[in-house]
Amino acid sequence: MNDIDAPLREPLSAEALEARLRSIGEQRYHHRHPFQLMLQNGELDRRQVQAWALNRYYYQAMIPHKDASLIARLDDPALRREWRSRLVDHDGEAEGEGGISRWLMLTDGLGLDRDMVVSTRRILPATRFAVDAYIHFVRERSVLEAIASSLTELFSPMVIGQRVSGMLKHYDFVSAETLAYFEPRLTQAPRDADMALDYVTRHARRLDQQQAVLDALIFKCNVLWTQLDALHHAYVAPGHVPPGAWSDKGAADDR
Amino acid sequence: MNDIDAPLREPLSAEALEARLRSIGEQRYHHRHPFQLMLQNGELDRRQVQAWALNRYYYQAMIPHKDASLIARLDDPALRREWRSRLVDHDGEAEGEGGISRWLMLTDGLGLDRDMVVSTRRILPATRFAVDAYIHFVRERSVLEAIASSLTELFSPMVIGQRVSGMLKHYDFVSAETLAYFEPRLTQAPRDADMALDYVTRHARRLDQQQAVLDALIFKCNVLWTQLDALHHAYVAPGHVPPGAWSDKGAADDR
Repeated sequence: MNDIDAPLREPLSAEALEARLRSIGEQRYHHRHPFQLMLQNGELDRRQVQAWALNRYYYQAMIPHKDASLIARLDDPALRREWRSRLVDHDGEAEGEGGISRWLMLTDGLGLDRDMVVSTRRILPATRFAVDAYIHFVRERSVLEAIASSLTELFSPMVIGQRVSGMLKHYDFVSAETLAYFEPRLTQAPRDADMALDYVTRHARRLDQQQAVLDALIFKCNVLWTQLDALHHAYVAPGHVPPGAWSDKGAADDR
Repeated sequence: MNDIDAPLREPLSAEALEARLRSIGEQRYHHRHPFQLMLQNGELDRRQVQAWALNRYYYQAMIPHKDASLIARLDDPALRREWRSRLVDHDGEAEGEGGISRWLMLTDGLGLDRDMVVSTRRILPATRFAVDAYIHFVRERSVLEAIASSLTELFSPMVIGQRVSGMLKHYDFVSAETLAYFEPRLTQAPRDADMALDYVTRHARRLDQQQAVLDALIFKCNVLWTQLDALHHAYVAPGHVPPGAWSDKGAADDR
């Protein structure tokens, strides 16, 4: 059993809790996933990058639902205001702005039909199940756990940098414009993560609260890891695209 | 696009609706899944059969939650009584009886530690996400869709027969006693499926209702298929066990 899987025996200081959260990220965040490494090392073909962008769109599209569910549960107007910035980041101030629109610039650039992407009907069922698990988690668990589950953003800058530089270097079908999604995330994610980390270390003082926070971050790492597992199984290993998913041989509309 | 994925254009007769449901099962049910074929053809090793039984335990354990959620939403006492038989099948009349207990005879027989199995803490995250998606579906969708999502039982007898005979033939670590779960299912599943099919064909008359019923069965086939995809990726392809799951090399308590 990994250290990070062992139950806590006594409450940790704020510093020790943060260290343990960072250790979970080091071991469980998807920067270690084989599919992520293949993506940034130029080992995927165009179809595989398309499949990644298509499926990840569903995650991007559901993030504002997740954040709005959380805001709906917060009693403190100041905290609601802070969290509201995430809605702005993803939905923008006007049509064509925000993270979801920028993600569609990527899927456009990869030659995927925008209506097919937005419909989400050709994503892997495993993508939908994992993302929906995150939505349900934020709706149903405590506010502390819901906020803690966002702490994967502590680790996203390290993967975004490598992903963008690796994709630009290796793939001639990818341009800086089509990767416009990632640039703002390099400042948004640390701001969001600092705020969530501050909340968590101030509010998780008891043993059971700290355990719940650690488990919430492990859960969220699993949500991300499982999405890449499903992509890897369906589109790297030959012959495993599930029925009805994009690029299934029985299907005809794979734009 | 498969025929079964094309939207309905006009309402079907009850017979045509049933035929279409059966066609979905023929194309999407997990009797076609490579992992299922390997299981019944004796191509898995003991560790892979253990992983299957461990993960499938979570599905078995959650079924009464799913059925109780549905009963809680039914207005008709007669229908609640009929559906209650599913609770009896899975939970039994007394300690040690019912489908969940019989599934634990299988995991016992395969040498898995019962406490570890019952804790479900070493299952694949993808198993949990897929099964929980089914639970949420039954809680949140219409009663008609919830009942339709149970229609995979129409197809289970065909897979149970092959699974039991194949496993007994090929695996010396499996006995008829450890497969006791399956025998009652050969009569329970058709009884349950007939009842659900009767309800669905009587209540789904409008185009939108029939489309929802077909989509519910596709959803449920995806729930089952995704579980086998995750097992296949983690335990057949080498080196893909996700962090923290049973048989992860970083973990020490793999009984």
